[in-house]
Amino acid sequence: MKGNCIVAQSGGPTAVINASACGVIQEAMKHKEITGVYAAHNGILGVLNERIFDLGKEEPAAIEGLKVSPASALGSCRYKVKSAEDFDKILAVFKKYNIRYFFYIGGNDSQDTADRVNNLASAQGYELRCVGVPKTIDNDLACTDHCPGYGSVIKYLATMTMEAGRDTEALYTADTVNVIEAMGRNAGWIAAGTALAKRDEEDAPHIILLPEAPFDAQGFKDKVDNLLSTIGRAVIVVSEGTKNGDGTYIAEQKGDFAKDAFGHTQLGGAANYIKELVEREVKVKARFAIPSTIQRNGIHFASLTDSKEAYLAGKRAVELAVQGVSGKMVTLERVSDDPYLCRTGEAKLADVANGEKFLPREWISDDGFFVTDGFIKYARPLIQGEVRPLIEDGLPKFIRFKKHFVTP
Amino acid sequence: MKGNCIVAQSGGPTAVINASACGVIQEAMKHKEITGVYAAHNGILGVLNERIFDLGKEEPAAIEGLKVSPASALGSCRYKVKSAEDFDKILAVFKKYNIRYFFYIGGNDSQDTADRVNNLASAQGYELRCVGVPKTIDNDLACTDHCPGYGSVIKYLATMTMEAGRDTEALYTADTVNVIEAMGRNAGWIAAGTALAKRDEEDAPHIILLPEAPFDAQGFKDKVDNLLSTIGRAVIVVSEGTKNGDGTYIAEQKGDFAKDAFGHTQLGGAANYIKELVEREVKVKARFAIPSTIQRNGIHFASLTDSKEAYLAGKRAVELAVQGVSGKMVTLERVSDDPYLCRTGEAKLADVANGEKFLPREWISDDGFFVTDGFIKYARPLIQGEVRPLIEDGLPKFIRFKKHFVTP
Repeated sequence: MKGNCIVAQSGGPTAVINASACGVIQEAMKHKEITGVYAAHNGILGVLNERIFDLGKEEPAAIEGLKVSPASALGSCRYKVKSAEDFDKILAVFKKYNIRYFFYIGGNDSQDTADRVNNLASAQGYELRCVGVPKTIDNDLACTDHCPGYGSVIKYLATMTMEAGRDTEALYTADTVNVIEAMGRNAGWIAAGTALAKRDEEDAPHIILLPEAPFDAQGFKDKVDNLLSTIGRAVIVVSEGTKNGDGTYIAEQKGDFAKDAFGHTQLGGAANYIKELVEREVKVKARFAIPSTIQRNGIHFASLTDSKEAYLAGKRAVELAVQGVSGKMVTLERVSDDPYLCRTGEAKLADVANGEKFLPREWISDDGFFVTDGFIKYARPLIQGEVRPLIEDGLPKFIRFKKHFVTP
Repeated sequence: MKGNCIVAQSGGPTAVINASACGVIQEAMKHKEITGVYAAHNGILGVLNERIFDLGKEEPAAIEGLKVSPASALGSCRYKVKSAEDFDKILAVFKKYNIRYFFYIGGNDSQDTADRVNNLASAQGYELRCVGVPKTIDNDLACTDHCPGYGSVIKYLATMTMEAGRDTEALYTADTVNVIEAMGRNAGWIAAGTALAKRDEEDAPHIILLPEAPFDAQGFKDKVDNLLSTIGRAVIVVSEGTKNGDGTYIAEQKGDFAKDAFGHTQLGGAANYIKELVEREVKVKARFAIPSTIQRNGIHFASLTDSKEAYLAGKRAVELAVQGVSGKMVTLERVSDDPYLCRTGEAKLADVANGEKFLPREWISDDGFFVTDGFIKYARPLIQGEVRPLIEDGLPKFIRFKKHFVTP
């Protein structure tokens, strides 16, 4: 089917979401059926606002440079498409610009949007192929072994934990406890991934607090006391989504900005909460770090495995669409752990949209304060190899598109 | 003069303080006059507590591995030597272990300690050569063009700012402002260094708040408003030591741990303070990141220039001591900017101990919210080249000494 394609990125950026965009764009440009390769600026908002730019007018080097540029070069958004009016508008814009292929790179909210657009087009008899490309540092998407973006965030956060861990090891007589806050609102995959930093009993992290393991304050205090009496220090990774036994977050924010556009409670302060708990209850000085969005954009030490899979997922989405597939998301299927082999698969957008994958109980240690070897075996292949960004004058060099906006 | 040497590390670790230790150790092992090469575990505390280990019993590969291992492999401390009793004990231990060479790698508190020990030894007629090696991420040591540790912290923090800056650029319709907290209690050198990330008007950081420029809340609000109306977002780097016009910190901590062992006020919360100010006054959503000790230990993306200078400073300290010099600290003297040339010099320990170097007013922009080209010219040579740590299974591999403790 001849027509234009549109690619868009949504939600929180990652170090490799641009590698997925690169896979989509470079593959789309190979197919004669795809007449124009367009981008929606800032995800679905770019469609709603008709802010659509022509990727065919960008330098090929800039498109290639997506592989070594973090965050979402097409622009992203957190806009939740809900109203029938919005969906009608999206389809109207697609018709107006003769969009026949829609590639949406994002998490489950984005796959939900793609699914609804797909269904609407189908109901109206407008030929449209919607294929989703998975993206999330949270690694909580259903139907896929893991998500592009996850390998890079844990490689980088594990490295931060190792490096800051050595700081605590050096300064334990003064700064005895260090708390590092990992992203992850509901699932502990990111915090869990820092366990890869630990090669030895002495190595950080010594405790990992996960949303899936209700916070046991007394057990935690005992664990810290025990660490202080053995190695004299503790490096604690706390997931921002760590919850009390009653399901409330250990640190909920109050005020005007306490909920985001999706109605999700905004978190923050989990690290500060744990730091203060340690100072009050264990009576040693604690520090804390909140890497926040830094952790998810670390292209300068991203996982090459992750980057390649992100690219592959984008490329595969185009291959599927050209073959006539619609209403699906590309998945990653692990064939084997050692040697690590991974291939792409497919899942229904609706199945992805409605699922959420948590860290399984069997991958959390009995005491709830660490992960098991089963998790390590799962995660280790995902962080292998290093992306090497271009360096100019001692710092990475990222691309920025010129954005030639189009009219129909 | 024949005898043993002792090397110690003090204060906050850096990415390259171990490179300095490596320079001391490898050079010391070349000299016949130096019969044993010892380390004090945890800085001067290791001397006071007679926790002294023999570096001659460590693997040469471990000593070489110091170049790619962050933080203080000898252990560090924040113990302020003040009492005459402590100084007497230090000298007594030196005599007991026949220590004739003392290399102290640290900031001005450490150089002060080295100076006093040197004077005491001199007064008692005990032949001792004390040479200091500069170390501080803060770059606030007097008598030296810059400090080993500084180039690496700004290279890494500038990279974080670039990467997180692209996140804000992608998500500005939801997360409009991002605040990144830089270390630097009194001097703004670290926050200033993130300006290197900016190659273009669009690039982060857009505002830098420095301790040397009293915080002007109205000017700041106007600046943010202006950024929102032009590029639609703002990435703000705030120094933890940013002060109000009356000299108070914008964010002082209260409570039991509000002061450290030196009586310095513990800071934290500058980023949170600015985030809340933006949300309240500008009425857009803001995020914040606190890289904390992560920023100063980033060996995985450390400056090769910095690492080499750190090594050179350590090596030079030994050369000077063997030549008979005592009571001095090695300095770095810039010969030229372009091409960048730097050589070592010497300064009196007392002059270093009592000095503190702030960001000069002429390197701060007129409005107080950025730095000038003069600063950029100064800082850029310091971040050139990348240290490449050993990688094993996708993560850096650091050394840890076996620590064979000695008795006299």
